[in-house]
Amino acid sequence: MTDYVRDGAEIYRRSFATIRAETDLTRMPPDVAQVAVRMVHACGMTDLVDDLGWSPAVVSSARAALRGGAPVLCDAAMVASGVTRRRLPADNEVLCTLGDPRVPDLAERLGTTRSAAALQLWGDRLGGAVVAIGNAPTALFRLLELIAEGAPRPAAVLGIPVGFIGAAESKQALADSDLEFLVVHGRRGGSAMVAAAVNAIASEQE
Amino acid sequence: MTDYVRDGAEIYRRSFATIRAETDLTRMPPDVAQVAVRMVHACGMTDLVDDLGWSPAVVSSARAALRGGAPVLCDAAMVASGVTRRRLPADNEVLCTLGDPRVPDLAERLGTTRSAAALQLWGDRLGGAVVAIGNAPTALFRLLELIAEGAPRPAAVLGIPVGFIGAAESKQALADSDLEFLVVHGRRGGSAMVAAAVNAIASEQE
Repeated sequence: MTDYVRDGAEIYRRSFATIRAETDLTRMPPDVAQVAVRMVHACGMTDLVDDLGWSPAVVSSARAALRGGAPVLCDAAMVASGVTRRRLPADNEVLCTLGDPRVPDLAERLGTTRSAAALQLWGDRLGGAVVAIGNAPTALFRLLELIAEGAPRPAAVLGIPVGFIGAAESKQALADSDLEFLVVHGRRGGSAMVAAAVNAIASEQE
Repeated sequence: MTDYVRDGAEIYRRSFATIRAETDLTRMPPDVAQVAVRMVHACGMTDLVDDLGWSPAVVSSARAALRGGAPVLCDAAMVASGVTRRRLPADNEVLCTLGDPRVPDLAERLGTTRSAAALQLWGDRLGGAVVAIGNAPTALFRLLELIAEGAPRPAAVLGIPVGFIGAAESKQALADSDLEFLVVHGRRGGSAMVAAAVNAIASEQE
């Protein structure tokens, strides 16, 4: 059997040291760089930083919102599952409405996916919230539509859906908006990356 | 606002068509190729197939086990969360013991990570099970140790931990074993990829 490191803290320490040695984080604000390191850790790909896009105040805005008790609104159960509750500064609500029994009917009525329809059930939580999208491009497109139609603005949108149809376009649309945003341009993304971003924003502890 | 595809079934159809057009799946058995397509779909990276490793009967073995009622044993809550319950053929148990309150003490006593210690609580479920590891290399190393020490053999091990310390090595150790296995060699991996593999094995429907 291969010998291996069994000390969790030591694994973290070596992992983050490897990431910092192999990535160039100098083009980022320090608080975004800290989030980037954790996202790279979650996916094992140092070149992820090349595809990262952000608004300069996204981390400070999201962090302040969480400290103020804002909820984390997620498009998928895996995202909500990936948020480490003990890192959250105010016992914040972590909400995913995709499994709500009303969603299938809502999706049919709205002529869209269940992931997009589920946003209707976020209700009045959207204003000032931290939105974490890690699966469905249609959820991100729908969010931008709702805001264009006058819905309250979230404190930050971590828009990191994954895939081949609409993912890159939805993230570009977010990056072109005047919202506070964090994206991974292109096809890559996913629940682990966006949960890692939430976890890094929630607490500065590595 | 960008126009975008809102029909979930059409998004799936176009996604899988794009993946099949951009990847060379000819070196794989057809049942492994079907699993590979769903894994690529989950991460947005067509070059994932270049890092895929498998034993020839891994999919048939895992599929038969699930049809026979075997549990899916997961190393992380995100993996369990990503398994689509309605795809499972026998209302199979999906178990993650990492959150069990006994785990921290167990980890300290065993001198290992909580992820590795959590395997102790799988109890007599391991024999014939489908193991899905999508986070911790230490969990995969520990599994191989337990089996080397005489623990019952699972039907298949989907070993896809992610990261910089031990991930590649743990997957190589699995690939060098005589277990039925599926791995993504190198640093890449994660809960979404392994959950996608479970979902593809659970049902042949794309």
